Amino acid sequence: MNNRYCIIMAGGIGSRFWPLSKNNYPKQFLDILGTGKSFIRSTFERFLPVVPAENFLVVTNAAYKSLVLEHLPELNPEQVLCEPMRRNTAPCLAYANYRIESVCPDASIVVTPADHLVTNEVEFQRVIRLGMDFVEQPAHTDALLTIGIRPSRPETGYGYIQVTNAQSDICPVESFKEKPNLETAQAYLADGHYYWNSGIFIWSLPGIQQAYRSYLPDMVALFEKGRYLFNTPEEQDFINGMFPQCENISIDYGVMERSQSRYTIPADFGWSDIGTWGSLYEHVQHDDFGNALNGNIVVEDTRNTVVNIQEGYEAVVEGLDHYLVALRDKSLLVCRLDDEQNIKHWIERL
Amino acid sequence: MNNRYCIIMAGGIGSRFWPLSKNNYPKQFLDILGTGKSFIRSTFERFLPVVPAENFLVVTNAAYKSLVLEHLPELNPEQVLCEPMRRNTAPCLAYANYRIESVCPDASIVVTPADHLVTNEVEFQRVIRLGMDFVEQPAHTDALLTIGIRPSRPETGYGYIQVTNAQSDICPVESFKEKPNLETAQAYLADGHYYWNSGIFIWSLPGIQQAYRSYLPDMVALFEKGRYLFNTPEEQDFINGMFPQCENISIDYGVMERSQSRYTIPADFGWSDIGTWGSLYEHVQHDDFGNALNGNIVVEDTRNTVVNIQEGYEAVVEGLDHYLVALRDKSLLVCRLDDEQNIKHWIERL
Repeated sequence: MNNRYCIIMAGGIGSRFWPLSKNNYPKQFLDILGTGKSFIRSTFERFLPVVPAENFLVVTNAAYKSLVLEHLPELNPEQVLCEPMRRNTAPCLAYANYRIESVCPDASIVVTPADHLVTNEVEFQRVIRLGMDFVEQPAHTDALLTIGIRPSRPETGYGYIQVTNAQSDICPVESFKEKPNLETAQAYLADGHYYWNSGIFIWSLPGIQQAYRSYLPDMVALFEKGRYLFNTPEEQDFINGMFPQCENISIDYGVMERSQSRYTIPADFGWSDIGTWGSLYEHVQHDDFGNALNGNIVVEDTRNTVVNIQEGYEAVVEGLDHYLVALRDKSLLVCRLDDEQNIKHWIERL
Repeated sequence: MNNRYCIIMAGGIGSRFWPLSKNNYPKQFLDILGTGKSFIRSTFERFLPVVPAENFLVVTNAAYKSLVLEHLPELNPEQVLCEPMRRNTAPCLAYANYRIESVCPDASIVVTPADHLVTNEVEFQRVIRLGMDFVEQPAHTDALLTIGIRPSRPETGYGYIQVTNAQSDICPVESFKEKPNLETAQAYLADGHYYWNSGIFIWSLPGIQQAYRSYLPDMVALFEKGRYLFNTPEEQDFINGMFPQCENISIDYGVMERSQSRYTIPADFGWSDIGTWGSLYEHVQHDDFGNALNGNIVVEDTRNTVVNIQEGYEAVVEGLDHYLVALRDKSLLVCRLDDEQNIKHWIERL
């Protein structure tokens, strides 16, 4: 069991939940759903029955290191890997892989975003264990496994995984699909061979290292130069120096799309990436008029509206239908829920 | 000149500008119009060319004494009279009158609310001087003078003063009228003998004291018991003990409506009581889409909307027409401008 590692990717700066998430306090550190726990805390606890606390690594920006340790006090500071800059997921995971290799060359690894929602944790843990068992079999050392979520609607906000055979617990992957338009999403849903790409990966360390060598040899060459510096006081300086030279590429494009031995476990454990206020709205309690409210809020003649205010604040909201009212950290947003994708542009104008 | 006194009534707790005005920071201490000065400060400065600083009295609640002195550092603490409770304007002014009587029995007095707007201060001062000159004539010692504002629209939010002869500078008052409905207000406007009641009064101290004796003898009896305590260390204890026994009645009902020697000066000096967000909206700058914004605010597809946020905050507002968005002191209000009269009910529900 002690060979099982979990890499939590927590470098996001997500502006989509502005003003809740900001550069100095991104989404993974928020308790947007009001569960009493931040996303990163929930993620950690969700994996804890499968992976011992000392085998977690969190990869994040140096600016968030203390926040990570605040939310996950079980970790020691060495378990928080600091990227000097955002370089997408392939360099991020290469760094974590090399760190793990320095202490446990035959590790099996589960990789997860820090900021997703899972409602059925028991089923989740069953699926993760199933995947780790799979990649730990000598016959599947080279398997790169993803978790595919059984789609419940023609969602256009997620990427899809197409499988060749949807009957088995663990299916070979036919292809990865970008976020589709509605028509295509409807076809995927009807077809039955398509799953939402959860962004959760499971692999053996030898398997993923071999894949990097095959598909990202330039990146591997950069990391190999410091192979003996991982888990030493020189590691951070080495990373800071080489990271900017790494190709800015995702693990999906850089490795998964090129791999010949990729699999998916079709799963159904109440998953959402809670990527937008709209998806948040789906997952929180509503009053009789469809309003999702937190805290000391009076609504009048208001429907289908999210009001999310900072603790210690109070609000009166009247005469809104299908709006978002969010107040956090001295920033206020009032907008139509349907227009939230424009948040980025508006906050640039501030 | 040193016989001229000004009483500023500053006891209001005005909830109509919630969340800007609150019990602990009512409207008179706010700079809602963004002029750089609070209402009480502007009021003080507006009278200063007519009344010397040492002849001002501010009547307010004990809770606001330090706020008053903060806004009017020219006053010494004895010039701030503290009511132990709200008992409407007749007891408030009786208190101030007795205080003045203890130091200047032949004073002439102008009484003013603390939280109104005047845009033409030169004309204002001309009118106030005209009124004080009038009541200082021995023939008019008993005159109770009001300032009537020439109406520019059929306003239903103000009381009206009906005069018998609208031709002279100083007109005898026929009657005082409550806030009218729209039809009546339109008739007042067409008639030409009706003025808005500004709540500003001018009288000689002997004249107003005689009026109190005639129309509010019970209240006078209460004050007479402490006649020799005013301007002594015992004054506050005496007031605290007797004030609760005073009738809760306005100067308008208690004195003005019963008086036989009441006059009004029809005036036109850019006056508003700024009693509502709607009236505030009239008096502040608008952008090309009719929005009244303060501070770091981005608006998108938004019209005829007031956004008023606390200094140091920022806001994005999208998709509103004719709304009010106000954020102050950890309280947020989003409502239709037309519904603002309900603010009181909403905040009771908080």
